[in-house]
Amino acid sequence: MSGQLERCEREWHELEGEFQELQETHRIYRQKLEELTALQTLCSSSINKQKTRLKDLKHTLQRYKRLASREEAELVQQLGANIKERQNVFFDMEAYLPKKNGLYLNLVLGNVNVTLLSNQAKFAYKDEYEKFKLYLTIILLLGAVACRFVLHYRVTDEIFNFLLVWYYCTLTIRESILISNGSRIKGWWVSHHYVSTFLSGVMLTWPNGLIYQKFRDQFLAFSIFQIIMGIFYINTEFCLLIFSDYKVPHRMELSFMSWHCTQLPAWCHHSSKHLLSAYCMPRKPPEVSSLVGA
Amino acid sequence: MSGQLERCEREWHELEGEFQELQETHRIYRQKLEELTALQTLCSSSINKQKTRLKDLKHTLQRYKRLASREEAELVQQLGANIKERQNVFFDMEAYLPKKNGLYLNLVLGNVNVTLLSNQAKFAYKDEYEKFKLYLTIILLLGAVACRFVLHYRVTDEIFNFLLVWYYCTLTIRESILISNGSRIKGWWVSHHYVSTFLSGVMLTWPNGLIYQKFRDQFLAFSIFQIIMGIFYINTEFCLLIFSDYKVPHRMELSFMSWHCTQLPAWCHHSSKHLLSAYCMPRKPPEVSSLVGA
Repeated sequence: MSGQLERCEREWHELEGEFQELQETHRIYRQKLEELTALQTLCSSSINKQKTRLKDLKHTLQRYKRLASREEAELVQQLGANIKERQNVFFDMEAYLPKKNGLYLNLVLGNVNVTLLSNQAKFAYKDEYEKFKLYLTIILLLGAVACRFVLHYRVTDEIFNFLLVWYYCTLTIRESILISNGSRIKGWWVSHHYVSTFLSGVMLTWPNGLIYQKFRDQFLAFSIFQIIMGIFYINTEFCLLIFSDYKVPHRMELSFMSWHCTQLPAWCHHSSKHLLSAYCMPRKPPEVSSLVGA
Repeated sequence: MSGQLERCEREWHELEGEFQELQETHRIYRQKLEELTALQTLCSSSINKQKTRLKDLKHTLQRYKRLASREEAELVQQLGANIKERQNVFFDMEAYLPKKNGLYLNLVLGNVNVTLLSNQAKFAYKDEYEKFKLYLTIILLLGAVACRFVLHYRVTDEIFNFLLVWYYCTLTIRESILISNGSRIKGWWVSHHYVSTFLSGVMLTWPNGLIYQKFRDQFLAFSIFQIIMGIFYINTEFCLLIFSDYKVPHRMELSFMSWHCTQLPAWCHHSSKHLLSAYCMPRKPPEVSSLVGA
């Protein structure tokens, strides 16, 4: 037998040994996976049960509050505060448990679990979402400039509008996944993307004609205005850096700055103020509440 | 203190006790989750390493095959068969490990893990995909009938075409998730949905005019033809039942019948033959290979 074939056989036997190890690891992994699934079910059902009982207790206390004496009212208030705190703890616990998807995700993806089970993965996903917005904004900006000043064809307009529809659809999907993972994105922020999807759809199907041509240029000029998003992205990123430096509890929350990105220039001044103050006082960040909540 | 408030306090203390238990379970769950993630990483990296080495070994053997004597050729063939078998085992192992998404899923969803980690969940997802196709087909059929015979408005046509675009987009997403979960859907099946998405997009943006009006009726009549899908769905479901009865290894595979659903009536005859033979011989199913692979 030639040396080369012998080497191949030796390699195979080596691989065989490693494969046995891998098989054992995989067996343990499958076993642990089953244990984990059982624990997940246990935790989820226990949380749901306790949440229902807490809700009932809260209702009973609210009904009783009106009839209570002063001393009793204090106790009722104390219990109410405890219940609220417990509900927050449940919210944090549920972030690490798989959840059923909402109606929208269920329609698009079906019943596939999209919960990210580690903090690292959650933050990575949030950062990816911000980057996705930045890149697509740049592409859309270039598209808008090209359509406004160079390409005056119906077909390029349609491609640009298709891209807009796809962008907003994708944003709504990604935001639903973020919400599933414990992000406290405000409802109006998500719903304004649903509205944008619909409006882009209207633009896409608007028949060519005098009114379309008149509106087209204005619309594209408005789209170009989105260059402001690029500038404020740096702002957002900077604020996120401050967040991570100072361990703000809900980094999954959409930042005030990223909301700015799609608003009118009137906001620029306000936002720049924050940026300046943050730059001037590098170890003393601006008030967190003003950055996190709108 | 009134009896009602006392009962509330007792309820709270009971809940407190249950919460302590839940916290302990959740702590163990988080710990096991970390262990599982470590095992996942270990298995994935080991599989990738071994796959690369197997590939190199295969290439070396293929190069050597031409120079080998008769006896050596047998050994080379034996090793080649072993490598192929090992690659199949890796494919099955990977179905229980999280994977990086492909380009399309990455664009739409971002880097969120969509691997379903139990057989039960995988089959449930596959069944849900079939049901989704059935329900949407019925809705699209009703829409097509309405547009063809009752509603002759551009706006209803647009809504119907939008629904078509959305349907095909959603199908491509769900099929990518199925592929991520080890389904051996054929490439042409998925790609014909990408083409359908594009074509529906063309229909959606087609300007109203004589040619559009001429094509519209034909297109809607063709869409109505899809009623055949509803009939063959029963066929598919029946075949899936046979599969589960006889423990066919790859139930995640798209069945031949579900492929039939979108084909021309010429296939009906062939398909009915299978159905008939299956009904006539309830404990002896038709050849599995003819049902699973096209």
